[in-house]
Amino acid sequence: MRIENGRANDVRIAYIGGGSCGWAWSLMADLALDGHMSGTVCLYDIDVGSAKKNSVIGKKFGSLPEAEGQWDYRVAENLEEALTGADFAVISILPGTFEEMRSDVHSPEKYGIYQSVGDTVGPGGLLRALRTLPIFAELALAVKEFCPNAWVINYTNPMTACLRALYTVFPEIKAFGCCHEVFGAQKLLAQMLEDVHGVKAERRDININVLGINHFTWIDEARYGGADLIPLYRDMAEARYDEGYAKGKDTNWMNDSFASANRVKFDLFRRYGYIAAAGDRHLAEFCPGKWYLGDPDTVRGWRFGLTTVDWRVEDFKRRQKRRERILNGEEELKPAASGEEGHLLMKALMGLGDTVSNVNLPNTGQISNLPVGAVVETNALFRAGVVRPIVSGAVPGNILSMLQPHVSNQETTVRAALECDEKLAFSVFANDPLVDIGLQDARELFEAMIRNTAAYLPAAWTRE
Amino acid sequence: MRIENGRANDVRIAYIGGGSCGWAWSLMADLALDGHMSGTVCLYDIDVGSAKKNSVIGKKFGSLPEAEGQWDYRVAENLEEALTGADFAVISILPGTFEEMRSDVHSPEKYGIYQSVGDTVGPGGLLRALRTLPIFAELALAVKEFCPNAWVINYTNPMTACLRALYTVFPEIKAFGCCHEVFGAQKLLAQMLEDVHGVKAERRDININVLGINHFTWIDEARYGGADLIPLYRDMAEARYDEGYAKGKDTNWMNDSFASANRVKFDLFRRYGYIAAAGDRHLAEFCPGKWYLGDPDTVRGWRFGLTTVDWRVEDFKRRQKRRERILNGEEELKPAASGEEGHLLMKALMGLGDTVSNVNLPNTGQISNLPVGAVVETNALFRAGVVRPIVSGAVPGNILSMLQPHVSNQETTVRAALECDEKLAFSVFANDPLVDIGLQDARELFEAMIRNTAAYLPAAWTRE
Amino acid sequence: MRIENGRANDVRIAYIGGGSCGWAWSLMADLALDGHMSGTVCLYDIDVGSAKKNSVIGKKFGSLPEAEGQWDYRVAENLEEALTGADFAVISILPGTFEEMRSDVHSPEKYGIYQSVGDTVGPGGLLRALRTLPIFAELALAVKEFCPNAWVINYTNPMTACLRALYTVFPEIKAFGCCHEVFGAQKLLAQMLEDVHGVKAERRDININVLGINHFTWIDEARYGGADLIPLYRDMAEARYDEGYAKGKDTNWMNDSFASANRVKFDLFRRYGYIAAAGDRHLAEFCPGKWYLGDPDTVRGWRFGLTTVDWRVEDFKRRQKRRERILNGEEELKPAASGEEGHLLMKALMGLGDTVSNVNLPNTGQISNLPVGAVVETNALFRAGVVRPIVSGAVPGNILSMLQPHVSNQETTVRAALECDEKLAFSVFANDPLVDIGLQDARELFEAMIRNTAAYLPAAWTRE
Amino acid sequence: MRIENGRANDVRIAYIGGGSCGWAWSLMADLALDGHMSGTVCLYDIDVGSAKKNSVIGKKFGSLPEAEGQWDYRVAENLEEALTGADFAVISILPGTFEEMRSDVHSPEKYGIYQSVGDTVGPGGLLRALRTLPIFAELALAVKEFCPNAWVINYTNPMTACLRALYTVFPEIKAFGCCHEVFGAQKLLAQMLEDVHGVKAERRDININVLGINHFTWIDEARYGGADLIPLYRDMAEARYDEGYAKGKDTNWMNDSFASANRVKFDLFRRYGYIAAAGDRHLAEFCPGKWYLGDPDTVRGWRFGLTTVDWRVEDFKRRQKRRERILNGEEELKPAASGEEGHLLMKALMGLGDTVSNVNLPNTGQISNLPVGAVVETNALFRAGVVRPIVSGAVPGNILSMLQPHVSNQETTVRAALECDEKLAFSVFANDPLVDIGLQDARELFEAMIRNTAAYLPAAWTRE
Repeated sequence: MRIENGRANDVRIAYIGGGSCGWAWSLMADLALDGHMSGTVCLYDIDVGSAKKNSVIGKKFGSLPEAEGQWDYRVAENLEEALTGADFAVISILPGTFEEMRSDVHSPEKYGIYQSVGDTVGPGGLLRALRTLPIFAELALAVKEFCPNAWVINYTNPMTACLRALYTVFPEIKAFGCCHEVFGAQKLLAQMLEDVHGVKAERRDININVLGINHFTWIDEARYGGADLIPLYRDMAEARYDEGYAKGKDTNWMNDSFASANRVKFDLFRRYGYIAAAGDRHLAEFCPGKWYLGDPDTVRGWRFGLTTVDWRVEDFKRRQKRRERILNGEEELKPAASGEEGHLLMKALMGLGDTVSNVNLPNTGQISNLPVGAVVETNALFRAGVVRPIVSGAVPGNILSMLQPHVSNQETTVRAALECDEKLAFSVFANDPLVDIGLQDARELFEAMIRNTAAYLPAAWTRE
Repeated sequence: MRIENGRANDVRIAYIGGGSCGWAWSLMADLALDGHMSGTVCLYDIDVGSAKKNSVIGKKFGSLPEAEGQWDYRVAENLEEALTGADFAVISILPGTFEEMRSDVHSPEKYGIYQSVGDTVGPGGLLRALRTLPIFAELALAVKEFCPNAWVINYTNPMTACLRALYTVFPEIKAFGCCHEVFGAQKLLAQMLEDVHGVKAERRDININVLGINHFTWIDEARYGGADLIPLYRDMAEARYDEGYAKGKDTNWMNDSFASANRVKFDLFRRYGYIAAAGDRHLAEFCPGKWYLGDPDTVRGWRFGLTTVDWRVEDFKRRQKRRERILNGEEELKPAASGEEGHLLMKALMGLGDTVSNVNLPNTGQISNLPVGAVVETNALFRAGVVRPIVSGAVPGNILSMLQPHVSNQETTVRAALECDEKLAFSVFANDPLVDIGLQDARELFEAMIRNTAAYLPAAWTRE
Repeated sequence: MRIENGRANDVRIAYIGGGSCGWAWSLMADLALDGHMSGTVCLYDIDVGSAKKNSVIGKKFGSLPEAEGQWDYRVAENLEEALTGADFAVISILPGTFEEMRSDVHSPEKYGIYQSVGDTVGPGGLLRALRTLPIFAELALAVKEFCPNAWVINYTNPMTACLRALYTVFPEIKAFGCCHEVFGAQKLLAQMLEDVHGVKAERRDININVLGINHFTWIDEARYGGADLIPLYRDMAEARYDEGYAKGKDTNWMNDSFASANRVKFDLFRRYGYIAAAGDRHLAEFCPGKWYLGDPDTVRGWRFGLTTVDWRVEDFKRRQKRRERILNGEEELKPAASGEEGHLLMKALMGLGDTVSNVNLPNTGQISNLPVGAVVETNALFRAGVVRPIVSGAVPGNILSMLQPHVSNQETTVRAALECDEKLAFSVFANDPLVDIGLQDARELFEAMIRNTAAYLPAAWTRE
Repeated sequence: MRIENGRANDVRIAYIGGGSCGWAWSLMADLALDGHMSGTVCLYDIDVGSAKKNSVIGKKFGSLPEAEGQWDYRVAENLEEALTGADFAVISILPGTFEEMRSDVHSPEKYGIYQSVGDTVGPGGLLRALRTLPIFAELALAVKEFCPNAWVINYTNPMTACLRALYTVFPEIKAFGCCHEVFGAQKLLAQMLEDVHGVKAERRDININVLGINHFTWIDEARYGGADLIPLYRDMAEARYDEGYAKGKDTNWMNDSFASANRVKFDLFRRYGYIAAAGDRHLAEFCPGKWYLGDPDTVRGWRFGLTTVDWRVEDFKRRQKRRERILNGEEELKPAASGEEGHLLMKALMGLGDTVSNVNLPNTGQISNLPVGAVVETNALFRAGVVRPIVSGAVPGNILSMLQPHVSNQETTVRAALECDEKLAFSVFANDPLVDIGLQDARELFEAMIRNTAAYLPAAWTRE
């Protein structure tokens, strides 16, 4: 990588999980539209065919008239090839197939446990961690060996546990985790600002203080310019408590499957006094199971959706087909900024301008009442060569009692996953607030979910 | 108070709640049987008649042939009279009547929430705190005014919140909280030692390291002399997992109402690897509601009991009647050591010999991963003029996720109770692991419980 | 204050110490040259005449052809008038006369103790604190009463103790402390970059991580764009160790009195491996007395100067005369950016654009191994309505042993000054690394310095 | 080791440095006089001859009529033999000869730096650490390999750094450090009690709260029974400030070389308000050099002595000769309790009764404002199988500024010694409060002291 005249050239990005038609395409589009960087993206995927197709798509993005960044796309045959020489390594993988995900999300329904996403906490989040973290341990070792100074940007869920695993295995790793859920809260505030005051604000100009853990982050300060936005939000939360507020519908491919009316956020605001900064589907999973996810009717009442795996399968096919059409020339590739910030953070890290954004990092002081070392989400300053968290204060006491057990559980999850420790894993499982069932049922469900996903778990989990 | 020849004379003890036929009698008996102290016990109770009766009982204890300590018993008409000049102030009160307790314990049953005690956490513990803490705030001010250097020994539940309230209102108070639940775990170990190895050990010689919060304390080290007792406990927990183990039945008046077979403790040990050090009835209330308290059958299956308020009413009447019989001379007063340690701790504090025992105190370093200031339970060294906690280590990670929310909730409870803050109170209520019901139900139940007990709550709780 | 079209109008600035010809003029110039703010500056000074003259000067600045900001200048007769309605309160005061300063700086010389500045630590820093902090206590109360939401920007030394006093008296105060010493280190790096690589860089584009306390801050990361500047500095520190390096002479009025050749910085770098980020005159005072300030020859050998009070008196007269000439029209007022950042930080706080700069604030997590609450200096993010420190890491262990006693001493200094506690004050005095004299001498010197400055100390200091 | 009927049999003690005529004899005497333990002491010393002689002495102790404990004494040829099977490993070694010690203590005198002991901090303490810690690193590995569960009791100085080195190399080591300096403060209080009030108290009954680091520990609470002893001490410190107070002369062989009149302690008490709990000779070395050690006259004025190495050489010869006489039968061996507590702590650890005593251990919460992990000295509870520090509070702020740099320096010393890092070592050297000399002189002295002791330093220190 070289910086010349305010441009970064010869940037090398390794993309682990480079066959995806989601996050990978987002980055491809963003890179193409940005005139300040160029270089090589090295796609690595266990589905090599998909990576190859994406390398063609990547080049297509680069040849569009709107493209300003010149990027070469290559396919790596192994991690060594992908990572060697990398300035950045992006990780966005999905261990297992949709069948494992189906077990994660839907098996618990037999016991009355509903999960709106099932990838972060709850039974699904735990099982996903158990099969994902061993891979992250391998990735950490590969980074240590092949590109110890590269910046590692993770998009994979469960975000907190994945990052913690990277740091556990390679403590010097320069890894952080990006998630757009907080952006949604900024967009919501921007939308309110426009609706109520007619002011059009950029999402990034909604200044917030963020603190918490991924998918359960909280905002205790929100301003636009000099103006405090909390009163605006309070008014809206009161006025629209019953019907919800969903005007500013998000059309990002990742979010549009199910609209939410932000009723969960409004309810949390009215009861706790702070803005929960993630989609309602995520927030609900961190709360006691009966609050928002008691049964499908309750979910409907709160006006958010349960993302089924059937939908994910269909969505995946749709995107595969679309890729084929584009490769065949039947459909035109349209570049559009993804709204993600990965490429902006890369530029900041290369010295092309400071930026402040929310990010997942081990706690080194940014949150005063969560344990040092645990992965938390707050704002950080990104500038040449460094990511430095911003001191964000203390989690309010009444929120803390909801948030802390997840922090402890995720610390335990990492140990359970890396050591294949069944007792630790079950302690997380049984104490999750969604798992409000008897111990015998919990044990049966846990064992079934292990069996269902055994093909993608370390052998230790099913060894007699 | 004067120390002369290894005896403490003119000791002045204020007993707040001095009309009780439980804890008060225990102390009276222990004082009578101990030859190293003498002085005056000043009984204060809002039920003056009962205090007066107890003053007669106290003197009767002193006139028994076995009595070695000479104590005068007086009745104070107000706190000033009770506390002025006190070396020790014992607090053992029960705000409200059995009707409030009935609401605490049984109202939640309509929503499928069962509580085995209902005085610590859960809906009952919260409501009890809301009506008890304002009184503790008054007591703290009275201590500050009338006997700022006295040692304050609390026996009242909810222990953690009561102590925290005392320290919140008068930070320099020399208060600590005594509870015999940990003794039960020592007795259990002693019983196993006798059963398996034929060794008869004194409870106090079972050396343990204790850490946690009142009624949810844990033992991570247990020794008798040089011998590690954990393997013995492990074997017993495995062998008697199904049937339980209850030989060493406790005959203390406070515990004998319902036997427990320690199955909850064995289950926790098998899953967490540490000895939970309280009665099963208490432990169950800190865990997710469906684990041990899902319904009466589940409770029976775990072989412990739900202490009903009806039983408490009967038990109270029984003890009242017994007092009458003793006062009438129809029944003889039999002195027996209570097994409590209050008088031993008093002696240690007056310089009559060091002792180490478990105690509730604000965290000043004794537990490394719970917040400074929160009330925790560990061992402490009692010696002339000081109680110093012993550094007891960190709560194991998987237990932490169960324990932390209760710590946070109790911190919030104190604020809610002292500030009459309904939002804070409901946040504790709705997030308690026993309250695994929908939000609407939780709200209804909370409001009903407030109404049911309004007569003993500050007016702010029911003001429109 | 109103924000309109990216401009802040009706900004109200209270300037405490508004008669000065130093910092006050800097701010006046900067305000005049900045086109994004306008409003009123209210000058308050116990020397009302001087404040009045400055109000004329301030208006003159505004009438220069280069002036873009429109500012009205008023003189306040008391703190209430100055502070009421203020958006910002700037504090830049000098308690006492040059005679007190003469005692601070020169009395210790009789005992072989030389101070290059004498306003931060050492005997002079302590005495200055003892007479300044009672005034800061009053200022804190005035801010609390008249403008509790105003931002308070302190320039007064001793910076650390002054800020700590403000927060001690009014914990909710929104105060921070600005100091340009760190800028000097950035300029030095920029100068090296130009000399060695021919690259002209703006000071503000030299990105650094700063941590420590005011006038004894350290840089452990320095980059320009992507380039690491530490090797450049290392080469220079080696090559110019003997002769020093002083090309980029600072012409700011505050610093130009005595050139420094940065030999102290180079020596510290060679021994500790980190860049000390303040002028050599300040750094020397934090180190053991014999290192750099053993005697005037030693000082000359290290190529920095002892700022005498005689020089300050002359310098003051020179500036007074210059003011007269300007007021008489004998000299033209030339506006030049001061290089200070106060006005930039004000703009950021009003929402006119984020900025990151070094600042003094109570530690809330920005430095992991200094006590919470102690005032420290690190970078912070300034944005609409908030200053948030950036997590800056831990002070390296070998530097910590030099730095910690100053942190503790300054905490003690604040208590000593606010409580007029002579024992605490002398404990700071006698343990300062510059005070390497016998206890009897230390006592005599301390008492003499108290007597010398008694006119400006609270009466308690000299009461028999 | 077996516990039978309140006695410990077959106890195995490895004594590293078993040839000494000091600490080794103390333990031999104490073991002989104690009827509750018996077993084998395995003496290991690089001076095998001396170890052999001591094994004979040990047996002689056992054959005295007063002897109650039966101990076998063996000589081990290597660490493996000494440590294998050990229940306890005592470390009391003196790396190097008196010539190295002469350099430690007396070389600095050329530069006007006087050390009263020279084995803890100051130039002598550092150099001693540099040659001792590599040996402790080896010992830690040997313990790890041969007796990982043994209790390791260190008597070697510099205590803090030695213990820290053990824990750095083998974090699970069960090591603690014993020092009798605090006992001296208890004896002093007991003496005052007798002098003033005619009360004869046992040293161990003077209850104190201790906090600090070895040889610079402080007492903030002292009681005998219920009585507060601080006022007694205050009166004495005032009344005897000028002349000192030395009645209760210590006749322990280790201390009797030079009497002290406790004037340093009284001076520290008058200025800081707390009792410094070590001999004046040790305390003086932690303070700024000019306070108590400015020159020999100053030392005499404070009425303590500089322990010369010549005296040590003579003392050593004297003790060698005495050993010969005893071995030859020319002198009778007289058993006398040493006043040390090593054997008592061993008994407590084996379950023969709890004891509370001061001890050096890594900080795990016992001192709230010193870093976790740093070795500190406080009281601890010794009981079967565990040593648990007692929560001892915070070091008072004004003492902290004297104490902290030693804590940081000792942390740095350990790194310097184990990594042979000259820069780190010199940073400790030059910043020590005794080293109040110019940098050039400091450098010369440091290098000379390295050269003087090179024969016993790792080769890295003198490699070109």
